Amino acid sequence: MTTLYISPGACSFAAHVLVHELDLPIQVERVTLRTPDSPIWRINPLGRVPALQLDDGTLLSENVAILPFLADLRPGTPLFAPEGSVERAQIQSWIGYLASEVHAAALRPLNRPERYSADSAAHPGIRAQARVQLFKAVEHIDRHLTGRQWLVGERFTIADAYLGVFAGWIGRIGEEFDQLRELARFREAYRARPAVQRAAAAEGL
Amino acid sequence: MTTLYISPGACSFAAHVLVHELDLPIQVERVTLRTPDSPIWRINPLGRVPALQLDDGTLLSENVAILPFLADLRPGTPLFAPEGSVERAQIQSWIGYLASEVHAAALRPLNRPERYSADSAAHPGIRAQARVQLFKAVEHIDRHLTGRQWLVGERFTIADAYLGVFAGWIGRIGEEFDQLRELARFREAYRARPAVQRAAAAEGL
Ligand SMILES: N[C@@H](CCC(=O)N[C@@H](CS)C(=O)NCC(=O)O)C(=O)O
Ligand SMILES: N[C@@H](CCC(=O)N[C@@H](CS)C(=O)NCC(=O)O)C(=O)O
Repeated sequence: MTTLYISPGACSFAAHVLVHELDLPIQVERVTLRTPDSPIWRINPLGRVPALQLDDGTLLSENVAILPFLADLRPGTPLFAPEGSVERAQIQSWIGYLASEVHAAALRPLNRPERYSADSAAHPGIRAQARVQLFKAVEHIDRHLTGRQWLVGERFTIADAYLGVFAGWIGRIGEEFDQLRELARFREAYRARPAVQRAAAAEGL
Repeated sequence: MTTLYISPGACSFAAHVLVHELDLPIQVERVTLRTPDSPIWRINPLGRVPALQLDDGTLLSENVAILPFLADLRPGTPLFAPEGSVERAQIQSWIGYLASEVHAAALRPLNRPERYSADSAAHPGIRAQARVQLFKAVEHIDRHLTGRQWLVGERFTIADAYLGVFAGWIGRIGEEFDQLRELARFREAYRARPAVQRAAAAEGL
């Protein structure tokens, strides 16, 4: 059986939401992260979630690949768009933007400054600058959401499933992020979805 | 006409290579980056390349979206794989890994430490740590390439078009990166491709 490896509240939450949104016959397995004895190291040599293990043992990593792959298990789902369409590319673009510019370029240095300098005296400065970059990166999303309920095509898509994770994290940072009203509205609409509530309950959030 | 905005030698080189590999009727326009008067700001509010402007004015950004979109302009091309296939997801996964873990998480702090701390005294430490992260991230690729000519499916795909950009950059860092023999071999095979040579000549590289 196909297995999705997740860690509670991590960025694997997006894929977990899709399992419920699309009612996929996928087993969801919880792992700890950043511990030497975690089973994730045997599954994914990078030690990261989400990781999707297919029936034949093939491992698929990266949200940018896992989210479209899950949607394509239900051809024609409104959560994605037809191959070759501009909408499909726009959905893929937001997922790429979130993975690179929001997660890797801004949230990572904010949460893990030790990966950006071995000198702990530099960490407060790295976190402060990461917060500036993060604000710029999500302000761009907030602006895009003005007059829109969801990111692309006036319907909930796999890009929204992914944005919901970061909207949740960002909601806990406080201060300047509280001005992002569109993102706050998005977060509420996301949390109201039954599939999101089911995934959250399963992760014990 | 569809226009691809590029900057010479930037990560937009991958999309430029695809224009030649797939013989696409796309105009390639060169812009300067990081200057307030660059036309890129009118095209892409993020000021980044690659940016693909479609006939109807729609803007598409992010390598993660542009490379698959270009390939899907030639349905059935061996540079990509059918919708819903595991190979397609694997190609997308490598593109996602390169965009997030190699480019955003490692090459960005190495080349632009000022985006990671306002304190210039911290920059040497940030660059040193970025080099460590970069080595880890590309060692994973070097290991995967052992016994393989290309990343996925024993043929050149859009993931290789993208890896070639970073393989080129990494080839100029020196020292520890010189041990990555599979990546060095990949770089030579990439540079031998006529489409790569045509794109390089057009960019004046
Ligand atoms: N580029 C990956 C990043 C995945 C990632 O960083 N996952 C985090 C959880 S949110 C993780 O597994 N961290 C453990 C670690 O980095 O050691 C993706 O977009 O899927
Ligand atoms: N996440 C984007 C990153 C694109 C990017 O960083 N492009 C660089 C050139 S390699 C750029 O335009 N830099 C200008 C800037 O950041 O100001 C992608 O993967 O396409």
